[in-house]
Amino acid sequence: MSPIKVDHIAVVVEDMDAALKFWQDALGLPLGGTERNEHEAVEVAFLPVGESRIELLKPISDDSGIAKYLAKRGAGMHHVCIAVTDIEAAMAKIAGQGFELINDTPRTREDGTRYAFVHPKSTGGVMIELYEVPEEKA
Amino acid sequence: MSPIKVDHIAVVVEDMDAALKFWQDALGLPLGGTERNEHEAVEVAFLPVGESRIELLKPISDDSGIAKYLAKRGAGMHHVCIAVTDIEAAMAKIAGQGFELINDTPRTREDGTRYAFVHPKSTGGVMIELYEVPEEKA
Repeated sequence: MSPIKVDHIAVVVEDMDAALKFWQDALGLPLGGTERNEHEAVEVAFLPVGESRIELLKPISDDSGIAKYLAKRGAGMHHVCIAVTDIEAAMAKIAGQGFELINDTPRTREDGTRYAFVHPKSTGGVMIELYEVPEEKA
Repeated sequence: MSPIKVDHIAVVVEDMDAALKFWQDALGLPLGGTERNEHEAVEVAFLPVGESRIELLKPISDDSGIAKYLAKRGAGMHHVCIAVTDIEAAMAKIAGQGFELINDTPRTREDGTRYAFVHPKSTGGVMIELYEVPEEKA
């Protein structure tokens, strides 16, 4: 029931090429893939490191959540995603202790992964994402 | 030569007890240990998760780097630490591509771990720490 691992650290970037120059070329992480997520209005690059990955997020519209974050806070770390085996149990435990979830029920990505966010106001300024990882992959 | 893993994610907190209520009690991470680092003027709590850990940092003086960060930016994620096998090679590669290191040469912790920071102005707003992990532990 305990969290399994850091699934990813999400970083908001202004310029994807410049960000890849650092994370890929200078730091030496492999580029695992890129995708354009129209729903979230972001271009994403995944760079695996150990059992985790760095996710670089570049807004592709001015009115997305990520674009607003970039305008308000500037580029930098956006959230940390923790993998759990049972997202409903994890959410119930968090909410039950008075912490505020952004999503009352899990949302589902196109690849089937279930996820939810915990509000940063509730956790001392850290946006936390929970990912459900099936037990057999944990 | 590639980075090995996310060693830790450092989070600046205002109130250690409140932070532990979230990370330990609600999220369910085990408390790996605590220490008082007089040199950095922080109280630290370590919470392992997979091969990484969350490090909660609470300033214990008003003029430390972490205290100034807290006053300026508020509580939240402070840096991400990436483990590498050869810190001098990693630093040379980063500096050689024009990115700015905060430390020109590795510093050494009391436990012997060698580390260095990359300046967030240089990386798109993310403070990166490099930790050298001996090859046999990698």
